[in-house]
Amino acid sequence: MNDRRLVILTEGRLDVFSAKTAVSIIRYRREDVVALVDQVNAGKDPESIIGIGKGIPIVGSIEETLHLKPTGLLIGIAPPGGMLPDGWRKHITDALKNRLHVISGLHCHLGNDSEFCKLAQDNQLDIWDVRKPPENIPIGTGKAKETKTVRILTVGSDCNIGKMVTSIEITNAAKKRGINACFVATGQTGIMIEGSGIAVDHVISDFISGAVEKLVLDRNHYQLLSIEGQGTIIHPAYSGVTLGLLHGAAPQGIILCHQPARKTLRHFPAFPILPLPDLIELYEKLAQPVHPCKVLGISLNCFGMSDRDALQEIQKVEKETDLPAVDPIKFGVNKFMDSIHSLLP
Amino acid sequence: MNDRRLVILTEGRLDVFSAKTAVSIIRYRREDVVALVDQVNAGKDPESIIGIGKGIPIVGSIEETLHLKPTGLLIGIAPPGGMLPDGWRKHITDALKNRLHVISGLHCHLGNDSEFCKLAQDNQLDIWDVRKPPENIPIGTGKAKETKTVRILTVGSDCNIGKMVTSIEITNAAKKRGINACFVATGQTGIMIEGSGIAVDHVISDFISGAVEKLVLDRNHYQLLSIEGQGTIIHPAYSGVTLGLLHGAAPQGIILCHQPARKTLRHFPAFPILPLPDLIELYEKLAQPVHPCKVLGISLNCFGMSDRDALQEIQKVEKETDLPAVDPIKFGVNKFMDSIHSLLP
Repeated sequence: MNDRRLVILTEGRLDVFSAKTAVSIIRYRREDVVALVDQVNAGKDPESIIGIGKGIPIVGSIEETLHLKPTGLLIGIAPPGGMLPDGWRKHITDALKNRLHVISGLHCHLGNDSEFCKLAQDNQLDIWDVRKPPENIPIGTGKAKETKTVRILTVGSDCNIGKMVTSIEITNAAKKRGINACFVATGQTGIMIEGSGIAVDHVISDFISGAVEKLVLDRNHYQLLSIEGQGTIIHPAYSGVTLGLLHGAAPQGIILCHQPARKTLRHFPAFPILPLPDLIELYEKLAQPVHPCKVLGISLNCFGMSDRDALQEIQKVEKETDLPAVDPIKFGVNKFMDSIHSLLP
Repeated sequence: MNDRRLVILTEGRLDVFSAKTAVSIIRYRREDVVALVDQVNAGKDPESIIGIGKGIPIVGSIEETLHLKPTGLLIGIAPPGGMLPDGWRKHITDALKNRLHVISGLHCHLGNDSEFCKLAQDNQLDIWDVRKPPENIPIGTGKAKETKTVRILTVGSDCNIGKMVTSIEITNAAKKRGINACFVATGQTGIMIEGSGIAVDHVISDFISGAVEKLVLDRNHYQLLSIEGQGTIIHPAYSGVTLGLLHGAAPQGIILCHQPARKTLRHFPAFPILPLPDLIELYEKLAQPVHPCKVLGISLNCFGMSDRDALQEIQKVEKETDLPAVDPIKFGVNKFMDSIHSLLP
């Protein structure tokens, strides 16, 4: 994971939500990124499109990045279904031909593609399919709740709404307070940032809870585990992953992530987002039989709003839920940290 | 699936719950079964152990079944984790050497085992790993709710409690009323009985709902789909499968399955079973955002109780829940059928 000089491929999809992986790598591993490949946005500055990444060149091809001596190509999107978009194949073969490793979080494993595989072998390169789970994940047992470590899980009112960012920010805030804290990655982007974890949406479904439990048990020497959530409990496609994660993590505390501007599920306009009080009740009731826990706060994704509007939204949500609310990117997560700190033995 | 002459392997695990697969095949495909292999119970009559299967010989080895001209060996158990128990390997190699096909619902695919695979190839035999999902299952979209077919899903207060049996009995009762009904199998035993279906606990977790939705959409020419549920919503290991199934099926009606004698989750004694009214509320609230539905009745597994005690239990549950209750094996599911019938357009 060290000494990485990454080119990130976003090819026409560079926006805050579609290119979540690219944006998060730029936010948390800025020092690793040497260029973006995106024909549609070539020549622009990333900051003008996604608000961060000032100065990273956006170019139209792998060839144009070679003078920057890149060591790897990272696939910067996580589309629903996780397939390789049409037209991206050439960028990947170009990268391998030019001796770049490939890092991908797609559901389809690039390492299983015969052309990519041969190029990688011929050039002694790695294809890291981040979503590929480890072998021999056990069935869940409910044992996470017996560990002494404090487990804080982020959950959401939808997918792609700020759960990973919130979990990382909580980890960083806890470390600043001197707490021995660990970010527990459960999705492809989190794993790329942290360098470890399991993409729970890619394990066989009977083993979702077991995978999360393994992540917790393997890290039970930490005082605090800040566990990345996935999906939402009412999602027509992904709710199973969300609930398995909740029960496998057996958290003492939950942070509910939400985007005020979003009224229906992303990519699923027929499905309204549930009111926050209903979501809080549902998550707490579902957690209860495995391990009782409370929602400790609301993390708001106020992307695109002014600071003043965001503050107004925060106040509104605090009144509605009687819980502390933050925007982790605009104002940090300090408001959560006293209640999290108080859970430590 | 026709002209099967099956030997069922239960090897020391022949009881109603551990050998659920064997018991269900005997109940619903009695005509296919020529013998059981179970050294511990050899010489006994199955009826004395599991209440059904009178006259099926129980023997100690594959060799002792050969005079019955079997065509296949069926693995009769579905243990947690789904691994092949120690000591069972010899029975499988014996079967293949004696030209029997193998049917298995274990998580570990027997077709991937090099020894079994070679024997099967040499003898031109099939190894049917029932849990192996089809390729290219799509992501869920919530589209099941747009079909005109009536979708009735069984859910449970625990695993291994009567969901598959209830769904099959509802299908059969509906057919008797002249309804064009189909049993939708979502687990290995159901698939072995029906000859089609997807073991949703074995798909990649992002695709649970999509798998169930595919089963529904592929069968939307039926008037009624009686969909087999899995697990329970509060299970520390399997809740994700349960919820993904609920949202993928988008049922109009739910039947809640329960065993009165069971106080804690099977194999998980630290986890009490939730009171039925709490479970009803939780299932209905979780279903609501994807597709509103009601619990229509309670299916009780009164195995081991006298008919009189079972009737008392049924009355008690009807009072507690204000819903019709049945034991599908002892008394049939007729009590449910008027409310299910009334859902047809």
